[in-house]
Amino acid sequence: MAVVSSSALDADIATRLKRDDAGLVPAVIQQHDSGEVLMVGWMDDEALHRTLTTGRVTFWSRSRGEYWRKGDTSGHVQHVRSVALDCDGDTLLVRVDQVGAACHTGARTCFFTDLGAVAGA
Amino acid sequence: MAVVSSSALDADIATRLKRDDAGLVPAVIQQHDSGEVLMVGWMDDEALHRTLTTGRVTFWSRSRGEYWRKGDTSGHVQHVRSVALDCDGDTLLVRVDQVGAACHTGARTCFFTDLGAVAGA
Repeated sequence: MAVVSSSALDADIATRLKRDDAGLVPAVIQQHDSGEVLMVGWMDDEALHRTLTTGRVTFWSRSRGEYWRKGDTSGHVQHVRSVALDCDGDTLLVRVDQVGAACHTGARTCFFTDLGAVAGA
Repeated sequence: MAVVSSSALDADIATRLKRDDAGLVPAVIQQHDSGEVLMVGWMDDEALHRTLTTGRVTFWSRSRGEYWRKGDTSGHVQHVRSVALDCDGDTLLVRVDQVGAACHTGARTCFFTDLGAVAGA
Protein backbone atom coordinates (compact mmCIF):
# COMPACT_ATOMS: atom_id res chain seq x y z
CA MET A 1 0.00 0.00 0.00
CA ALA A 2 1.50 3.28 -1.10
CA VAL A 3 1.99 6.10 1.35
CA VAL A 4 -0.15 9.07 0.32
CA SER A 5 0.86 12.33 1.91
CA SER A 6 -1.79 14.80 3.00
CA SER A 7 -1.98 17.36 0.24
CA ALA A 8 -4.20 19.94 -1.45
CA LEU A 9 -3.68 18.15 -4.78
CA ASP A 10 -6.82 18.23 -6.95
CA ALA A 11 -8.91 15.18 -6.06
CA ASP A 12 -9.40 14.05 -9.68
CA ILE A 13 -5.66 14.04 -10.26
CA ALA A 14 -4.97 12.35 -6.91
CA THR A 15 -7.38 9.56 -7.89
CA ARG A 16 -5.58 8.93 -11.18
CA LEU A 17 -2.08 8.95 -9.70
CA LYS A 18 -0.41 5.55 -9.19
CA ARG A 19 2.33 5.99 -6.63
CA ASP A 20 5.12 3.59 -5.68
CA ASP A 21 5.43 2.10 -2.20
CA ALA A 22 7.01 5.35 -0.98
CA GLY A 23 4.08 7.43 -2.35
CA LEU A 24 6.15 8.81 -5.22
CA VAL A 25 6.04 9.01 -9.02
CA PRO A 26 8.98 9.79 -11.31
CA ALA A 27 8.85 13.15 -13.12
CA VAL A 28 10.74 13.52 -16.40
CA ILE A 29 11.90 17.11 -16.84
CA GLN A 30 12.18 18.33 -20.41
CA GLN A 31 13.25 21.71 -21.83
CA HIS A 32 10.06 22.91 -23.53
CA ASP A 33 11.54 24.31 -26.73
CA SER A 34 14.64 22.22 -27.50
CA GLY A 35 13.07 18.93 -26.33
CA GLU A 36 16.20 18.12 -24.31
CA VAL A 37 15.57 15.69 -21.44
CA LEU A 38 17.25 17.38 -18.48
CA MET A 39 16.73 15.12 -15.47
CA VAL A 40 14.31 12.84 -13.64
CA GLY A 41 13.12 13.68 -10.14
CA TRP A 42 10.44 12.31 -7.83
CA MET A 43 7.18 13.86 -6.63
CA ASP A 44 4.62 12.99 -4.00
CA ASP A 45 1.12 14.52 -4.05
CA GLU A 46 2.23 17.72 -2.35
CA ALA A 47 5.24 18.23 -4.64
CA LEU A 48 2.96 17.75 -7.65
CA HIS A 49 0.40 20.16 -6.18
CA ARG A 50 3.08 22.82 -5.72
CA THR A 51 4.45 22.20 -9.22
CA LEU A 52 0.97 22.54 -10.76
CA THR A 53 0.00 25.70 -8.89
CA THR A 54 3.13 27.83 -8.36
CA GLY A 55 4.90 27.86 -11.75
CA ARG A 56 8.04 26.37 -10.19
CA VAL A 57 9.10 22.70 -10.15
CA THR A 58 9.17 21.12 -6.67
CA PHE A 59 10.47 17.59 -6.03
CA TRP A 60 10.55 15.27 -3.07
CA SER A 61 14.21 14.54 -2.36
CA ARG A 62 14.53 10.83 -1.57
CA SER A 63 18.07 11.27 -0.26
CA ARG A 64 17.35 14.24 2.00
CA GLY A 65 13.74 13.37 2.85
CA GLU A 66 12.44 16.89 2.20
CA TYR A 67 10.77 19.05 -0.42
CA TRP A 68 13.19 20.58 -2.86
CA ARG A 69 12.16 23.53 -5.00
CA LYS A 70 14.62 23.36 -7.85
CA GLY A 71 16.87 26.38 -8.01
CA ASP A 72 16.35 27.74 -4.49
CA THR A 73 19.98 27.01 -3.62
CA SER A 74 21.65 26.90 -7.05
CA GLY A 75 19.63 29.56 -8.86
CA HIS A 76 18.97 26.97 -11.55
CA VAL A 77 15.22 27.44 -11.48
CA GLN A 78 12.77 25.39 -13.55
CA HIS A 79 9.79 27.47 -14.73
CA VAL A 80 6.83 25.20 -15.50
CA ARG A 81 5.37 25.24 -19.01
CA SER A 82 3.11 22.14 -18.78
CA VAL A 83 2.65 18.93 -16.80
CA ALA A 84 1.26 15.71 -18.32
CA LEU A 85 0.40 12.36 -16.76
CA ASP A 86 1.06 9.16 -18.70
CA CYS A 87 -1.56 6.62 -19.81
CA ASP A 88 -1.27 4.43 -16.72
CA GLY A 89 -0.94 7.28 -14.24
CA ASP A 90 2.47 6.39 -12.81
CA THR A 91 4.81 8.90 -14.52
CA LEU A 92 4.82 12.67 -15.09
CA LEU A 93 6.29 14.70 -17.94
CA VAL A 94 7.08 18.26 -16.89
CA ARG A 95 8.03 20.69 -19.64
CA VAL A 96 10.00 23.61 -18.29
CA ASP A 97 12.14 26.59 -19.09
CA GLN A 98 15.40 25.70 -17.35
CA VAL A 99 17.61 28.49 -16.06
CA GLY A 100 21.26 27.47 -16.40
CA ALA A 101 22.31 23.90 -15.68
CA ALA A 102 19.81 21.23 -14.65
CA CYS A 103 22.54 18.94 -13.26
CA HIS A 104 24.32 19.47 -9.94
CA THR A 105 27.61 18.80 -11.79
CA GLY A 106 27.10 21.99 -13.80
CA ALA A 107 26.14 20.11 -16.96
CA ARG A 108 23.05 21.30 -18.81
CA THR A 109 21.49 17.81 -18.56
CA CYS A 110 22.11 14.93 -16.14
CA PHE A 111 22.29 12.44 -19.05
CA PHE A 112 25.86 13.03 -20.20
CA THR A 113 27.26 9.49 -19.84
CA ASP A 114 26.84 7.63 -23.11
CA LEU A 115 26.77 3.85 -22.67
CA GLY A 116 27.87 2.97 -26.21
CA ALA A 117 24.76 1.20 -27.41
CA VAL A 118 24.71 -0.71 -30.68
CA ALA A 119 22.28 1.18 -32.92
CA GLY A 120 19.27 -0.64 -34.33
CA ALA A 121 18.49 -0.93 -38.04
CA MET B 1 19.52 -4.35 -0.77
CA ALA B 2 18.56 -4.28 -4.42
CA VAL B 3 17.99 -7.47 -6.32
CA VAL B 4 20.56 -7.79 -9.10
CA SER B 5 19.69 -10.31 -11.76
CA SER B 6 22.40 -12.44 -13.28
CA SER B 7 23.28 -10.79 -16.54
CA ALA B 8 25.99 -10.36 -19.15
CA LEU B 9 25.81 -6.57 -18.67
CA ASP B 10 29.23 -4.91 -18.98
CA ALA B 11 30.84 -4.91 -15.52
CA ASP B 12 31.76 -1.21 -15.58
CA ILE B 13 28.17 -0.26 -16.34
CA ALA B 14 26.80 -2.70 -13.77
CA THR B 15 29.00 -1.09 -11.12
CA ARG B 16 27.70 2.38 -11.91
CA LEU B 17 24.02 1.39 -11.97
CA LYS B 18 21.94 2.28 -8.89
CA ARG B 19 18.88 0.05 -8.88
CA ASP B 20 15.75 0.29 -6.76
CA ASP B 21 14.75 -2.41 -4.28
CA ALA B 22 13.36 -4.50 -7.14
CA GLY B 23 16.66 -4.26 -9.06
CA LEU B 24 15.22 -1.84 -11.63
CA VAL B 25 15.95 1.60 -13.06
CA PRO B 26 13.50 3.79 -15.00
CA ALA B 27 14.26 4.30 -18.69
CA VAL B 28 12.95 7.43 -20.41
CA ILE B 29 12.26 6.72 -24.08
CA GLN B 30 12.70 9.66 -26.44
CA GLN B 31 12.22 9.92 -30.21
CA HIS B 32 15.75 10.74 -31.40
CA ASP B 33 14.93 13.40 -34.01
CA SER B 34 11.79 15.15 -32.78
CA GLY B 35 12.79 15.03 -29.11
CA GLU B 36 9.32 13.79 -28.15
CA VAL B 37 9.24 11.89 -24.84
CA LEU B 38 7.31 8.73 -25.70
CA MET B 39 7.10 6.66 -22.53
CA VAL B 40 8.94 5.49 -19.43
CA GLY B 41 9.68 1.81 -18.87
CA TRP B 42 11.80 -0.16 -16.42
CA MET B 43 14.98 -2.17 -16.95
CA ASP B 44 16.98 -4.61 -14.90
CA ASP B 45 20.59 -5.46 -15.78
CA GLU B 46 19.61 -8.04 -18.38
CA ALA B 47 17.04 -5.76 -20.08
CA LEU B 48 19.70 -3.02 -20.27
CA HIS B 49 22.24 -5.51 -21.63
CA ARG B 50 19.82 -6.57 -24.37
CA THR B 51 18.96 -2.95 -25.16
CA LEU B 52 22.65 -2.01 -25.45
CA THR B 53 23.65 -4.96 -27.64
CA THR B 54 20.73 -5.84 -29.91
CA GLY B 55 19.52 -2.52 -31.34
CA ARG B 56 16.03 -3.11 -29.90
CA VAL B 57 14.60 -1.76 -26.65
CA THR B 58 13.81 -4.45 -24.05
CA PHE B 59 12.05 -3.67 -20.75
CA TRP B 60 11.26 -5.62 -17.62
CA SER B 61 7.49 -5.64 -17.29
CA ARG B 62 6.65 -5.05 -13.63
CA SER B 63 3.00 -6.02 -14.15
CA ARG B 64 3.69 -9.24 -16.05
CA GLY B 65 7.01 -10.14 -14.40
CA GLU B 66 8.78 -10.88 -17.68
CA TYR B 67 11.05 -9.37 -20.30
CA TRP B 68 9.22 -7.37 -22.91
CA ARG B 69 10.88 -6.49 -26.20
CA LYS B 70 8.88 -3.52 -27.35
CA GLY B 71 7.03 -4.19 -30.60
CA ASP B 72 7.15 -8.00 -30.61
CA THR B 73 3.37 -8.15 -30.21
CA SER B 74 2.25 -4.73 -31.48
CA GLY B 75 4.79 -4.21 -34.25
CA HIS B 76 5.59 -0.87 -32.62
CA VAL B 77 9.31 -1.51 -32.46
CA GLN B 78 11.82 0.87 -30.85
CA HIS B 79 15.14 0.94 -32.71
CA VAL B 80 17.93 2.11 -30.40
CA ARG B 81 19.92 5.21 -31.35
CA SER B 82 21.74 5.82 -28.04
CA VAL B 83 21.55 5.05 -24.33
CA ALA B 84 22.80 7.42 -21.62
CA LEU B 85 23.04 7.03 -17.84
CA ASP B 86 22.35 10.03 -15.61
CA CYS B 87 24.82 11.65 -13.20
CA ASP B 88 23.81 9.57 -10.19
CA GLY B 89 23.42 6.31 -12.08
CA ASP B 90 19.76 5.66 -11.32
CA THR B 91 17.98 6.63 -14.57
CA LEU B 92 18.48 5.86 -18.26
CA LEU B 93 17.68 7.97 -21.32
CA VAL B 94 17.14 5.84 -24.42
CA ARG B 95 16.89 7.67 -27.74
CA VAL B 96 15.06 5.61 -30.32
CA ASP B 97 13.42 5.54 -33.69
CA GLN B 98 9.85 4.59 -32.79
CA VAL B 99 7.79 2.65 -35.33
CA GLY B 100 4.14 3.71 -35.04
CA ALA B 101 2.61 4.39 -31.64
CA ALA B 102 4.61 4.11 -28.43
CA CYS B 103 1.47 3.90 -26.27
CA HIS B 104 -0.72 0.82 -25.94
CA THR B 105 -3.75 3.13 -26.43
CA GLY B 106 -2.60 3.83 -29.99
CA ALA B 107 -1.38 7.33 -29.15
CA ARG B 108 2.08 8.31 -30.36
CA THR B 109 3.19 9.11 -26.79
CA CYS B 110 1.91 7.94 -23.41
CA PHE B 111 1.92 11.53 -22.07
CA PHE B 112 -1.36 12.77 -23.56
CA THR B 113 -3.16 13.83 -20.35
CA ASP B 114 -2.45 17.46 -19.62
CA LEU B 115 -2.87 18.37 -15.95
CA GLY B 116 -3.49 22.08 -16.49
CA ALA B 117 -0.45 23.48 -14.72
CA VAL B 118 -0.11 27.17 -14.01
CA ALA B 119 2.83 28.34 -16.14
CA GLY B 120 5.81 29.96 -14.45
CA ALA B 121 7.10 33.41 -15.27
